[in-house]
Amino acid sequence: MFCNSLKIRLIPLLFITLQSKAQKKTLYEHTASDVVTISSRVLNEDRKVYIHYPKVDSANLNKRFPVLYLMDGESHFDMLSQYVDYLSRWDVNVIPEMIVVGITNTKRTRDLTPTQSIINYFGQPDTATVSWMKPSGGGEQFLRFIKEELMPYVELNYKTQGFNIFAGHSFGGIASIYCMLTHPEMFNAYIALSPSLWWDKEYVLKLTDKNLVKASVLNKKIFYSDASEGVADSSSYHTNLLKFDTLLTKKELKGLEYKYKYYPVETHMTVPIVAYYDALRFIYKDWENSAKKP
Amino acid sequence: MFCNSLKIRLIPLLFITLQSKAQKKTLYEHTASDVVTISSRVLNEDRKVYIHYPKVDSANLNKRFPVLYLMDGESHFDMLSQYVDYLSRWDVNVIPEMIVVGITNTKRTRDLTPTQSIINYFGQPDTATVSWMKPSGGGEQFLRFIKEELMPYVELNYKTQGFNIFAGHSFGGIASIYCMLTHPEMFNAYIALSPSLWWDKEYVLKLTDKNLVKASVLNKKIFYSDASEGVADSSSYHTNLLKFDTLLTKKELKGLEYKYKYYPVETHMTVPIVAYYDALRFIYKDWENSAKKP
Repeated sequence: MFCNSLKIRLIPLLFITLQSKAQKKTLYEHTASDVVTISSRVLNEDRKVYIHYPKVDSANLNKRFPVLYLMDGESHFDMLSQYVDYLSRWDVNVIPEMIVVGITNTKRTRDLTPTQSIINYFGQPDTATVSWMKPSGGGEQFLRFIKEELMPYVELNYKTQGFNIFAGHSFGGIASIYCMLTHPEMFNAYIALSPSLWWDKEYVLKLTDKNLVKASVLNKKIFYSDASEGVADSSSYHTNLLKFDTLLTKKELKGLEYKYKYYPVETHMTVPIVAYYDALRFIYKDWENSAKKP
Repeated sequence: MFCNSLKIRLIPLLFITLQSKAQKKTLYEHTASDVVTISSRVLNEDRKVYIHYPKVDSANLNKRFPVLYLMDGESHFDMLSQYVDYLSRWDVNVIPEMIVVGITNTKRTRDLTPTQSIINYFGQPDTATVSWMKPSGGGEQFLRFIKEELMPYVELNYKTQGFNIFAGHSFGGIASIYCMLTHPEMFNAYIALSPSLWWDKEYVLKLTDKNLVKASVLNKKIFYSDASEGVADSSSYHTNLLKFDTLLTKKELKGLEYKYKYYPVETHMTVPIVAYYDALRFIYKDWENSAKKP
């Protein structure tokens, strides 16, 4: 016992003496990503975006890639970049290599909500002078920024192939759905994790019923999900997702592939980890077979 | 139609002309991680490890952290570092901040297997002169490297708190279980994703039955899982995991918390994404409540 405990104490000492010269310490090199600041005329402010892209393949310099435009870049850019890199590795290969564009926020509520509203999460008017919901309703301008300034920049400077995905969580979830309903020409696929369908008396839910008509969304895919939100706070969060899912099912739109997933054991903040993974797998569910049978 | 298409063509041009001076492009700054090369006397070779650690909290400079020792560092270090950072964020906070030590491979089969064997995945002797299985059986030495050289280095140079996790996938899965069975003093928790229990006629399965006795694993946690392996190739992969799970259940060991999860829709290579997340949540399943009620 004594010997053992002495040995444990001596090992670190011995180690310092004998090994310290032999150790090298350098900084870990992550796959490179860019930080681009775009002076937006549409929004009249500087917008910072993170851009992650596949390593140059010297054997295939003309290779071009889909682009995943991601809202809340400061929160989920690292995760999505990592997923995309890992899942597109030659020995995993269940999705293609991709460019990930993480859009960071300036005025989040303003950009990601489709309407000006002071009705809060619990359906009550929030008239407090300083409300976290103000300003709101800038969604249309935010999409204009993406369409007229961000997308052209990305398409000019990176090897895009034309397939674009729009992904968001919470307010980013309604922004994604709103974009599909109002500007279907911008993206090919949508990810809406725990979308805040409660916003402005279910504005986006009503718009879905109104705008989703035959041929309005040809060759589109959408993945949407929610977590424990509705149970955790007895709100209509989960019911709203079910309503949205029922709407899409009822409309039987040819050309729209959709998938709903409910994660009752995840919270609003943990769900992006599992749901972004499932969303990528859904969008590229046919990738594995198509890639393996060239 | 003409106007529209002209507009689309003009936008990028306009953008270049008017905006190009206003754009700034820099390199994305990831959270820093170290690359440390340890000249191992035990293994008689240089070993490269990646070390990711929480940002310095100026308000709490004495804060110390659990350490996740991860095999196959080159494959899963980025993912685990990202999970740990995201899940320990103040607004997610379902696990503590952690140090992640990714051990990269030199001779993977040698280090991660417990015995010298030439019985292949299908239970047949693999006598080919050049076999991917050679050399094998260096598991004991590999654990000595971790215990006598790597752990002392990490404990001396990083703010460790004494709680250590050992995590591996495939061969790394049996290395993790083997370590729990033979050197339970080294780690507090184990993660074994799709462990290659087939190795050497189910050597680790037999060792589990033999070595797991009362009080041999006090205050330990283990998460193990498998994916579609057994179905995909009609092997005993899944049956082996069921046997391992039955063994742990039958032994009713006080002080060993275990969780088995089966992911039939994931493959051997996709499963780390979902299973490493579930494993971290399992190990820290009581974290949320304990942290929120200080």
